[in-house]
Amino acid sequence: MDANQKLQKKFDDGFHICVGLDTDIKKIPGFLLSCKNPILEFNKIIIDSTFKHAASYKINFAFYELYGSKGFDDISQTLELIPNDVLTIADAKRGDIGNTSQMYAQSIFNYFNFDAVTLNPFMGFDSLSPFLEYPDKLNFILALTSNNGAKDFEKLMLSNNKFLFQHVIQTVNGWNTNNNCGIVFGATNVKELEENIQSFNSMPILLPGVGAQGGSLEDVANTFSLHKKKNYLVNISRALLYLDNSDNLSISVAKAIKDLNSIIQIYI
Amino acid sequence: MDANQKLQKKFDDGFHICVGLDTDIKKIPGFLLSCKNPILEFNKIIIDSTFKHAASYKINFAFYELYGSKGFDDISQTLELIPNDVLTIADAKRGDIGNTSQMYAQSIFNYFNFDAVTLNPFMGFDSLSPFLEYPDKLNFILALTSNNGAKDFEKLMLSNNKFLFQHVIQTVNGWNTNNNCGIVFGATNVKELEENIQSFNSMPILLPGVGAQGGSLEDVANTFSLHKKKNYLVNISRALLYLDNSDNLSISVAKAIKDLNSIIQIYI
Repeated sequence: MDANQKLQKKFDDGFHICVGLDTDIKKIPGFLLSCKNPILEFNKIIIDSTFKHAASYKINFAFYELYGSKGFDDISQTLELIPNDVLTIADAKRGDIGNTSQMYAQSIFNYFNFDAVTLNPFMGFDSLSPFLEYPDKLNFILALTSNNGAKDFEKLMLSNNKFLFQHVIQTVNGWNTNNNCGIVFGATNVKELEENIQSFNSMPILLPGVGAQGGSLEDVANTFSLHKKKNYLVNISRALLYLDNSDNLSISVAKAIKDLNSIIQIYI
Repeated sequence: MDANQKLQKKFDDGFHICVGLDTDIKKIPGFLLSCKNPILEFNKIIIDSTFKHAASYKINFAFYELYGSKGFDDISQTLELIPNDVLTIADAKRGDIGNTSQMYAQSIFNYFNFDAVTLNPFMGFDSLSPFLEYPDKLNFILALTSNNGAKDFEKLMLSNNKFLFQHVIQTVNGWNTNNNCGIVFGATNVKELEENIQSFNSMPILLPGVGAQGGSLEDVANTFSLHKKKNYLVNISRALLYLDNSDNLSISVAKAIKDLNSIIQIYI
């Protein structure tokens, strides 16, 4: 089963939540700080409480690179905790000239053995093609992000009267010959989602921005449902990870992801 | 002395070569393969042979991330080999939403203690501002890269009749309030350099694309000289690292960087 099939199976089963493992030592419960590896221990609790109800886990590389080589070991060990039927996404936003991207792809797909990655399209096709040459993997390419700075370049108007992010989506459709491309599309503005949803075609969409950044899960689920699409992953990080500082964390998180799935179920 | 001052001192002394440590185990001389850490041993030879004649070292993260945590340790140990008066650049092309970029900046500037970094501007100001808030560091922001894919997005025409990369340069000029921004500008087409050189103002320019990618050192040195500018770093990786497979490597590389500097001297 390749990465796309693994994800489609979750969509078929009604699962759309991507648990973002943005693990921050300053925010994890105090009772974990005396453990040998608090970050790994915290990730284990989150994964054990959510894996039956999650479509995917997204590991945000920055939160681990902060600790250099120890952080990379934490990524490897976290991946070992994730059951094989749940998609793993390296949120690394890589992209570089061909011979360099080839090394990044080897790092993420061979060394770490992630199912999927996030990529930055700025440098164009040959900067991403080494990733796209892995037919069994999934590549979520940035189009419109959920931050304020999206207006600076992503939303620039091109001479063909399209926004840059729209041109990225159209271009990525053309790159999707191995059926292994996805799109990152911010969930903070439902009108933008509504206006662009048809351009996604069959590509899976990773939506950041729900929760701490202000997007609404209801709006996202409703919009995809209205268009009879189910190819979407809603990333939830802070709103799930840091909702309970007590040793009740495990129970609280398990309940929270079930509640999120219940909201989505309303629209299916 | 902050990063920009460190670099300006090298420019004042007539040094403009950035040695790109794209160290590839498949390309390093065979006699090193029996060492405990061939990559580190190779980097040591390259650094020892070049540090008196180099303006900067650029560590291409992909070539190290390929080996996971061991690669990150190699980066740290390589940095220890570089004398303090030579600028160190993390070629990592990072960029993400604010709370994430803050972690990347801590990784590169605090954990590894690089002087400078390369950044991808696609996600806009707030994705780079955590880096720009380090006044003592330097941030080389991608505008026009040296790869074929530069045409896909960087060279798109905007509705204001500018290319996207030109809009990036103009925007970065506005972000440069801490005098810690630089630009990455591909050296493969001297006409493009000529047409845009005035827009760089006082920012240092990192130029990839000379050597293996077809750009000409003479053209770059001549163009900056004609405009009475000396704020440029020409990256040389493959053409310097892999020119001699024998145990004469050290002597060959030392001669090669002096030859490159001699070419630049003609135009000063």
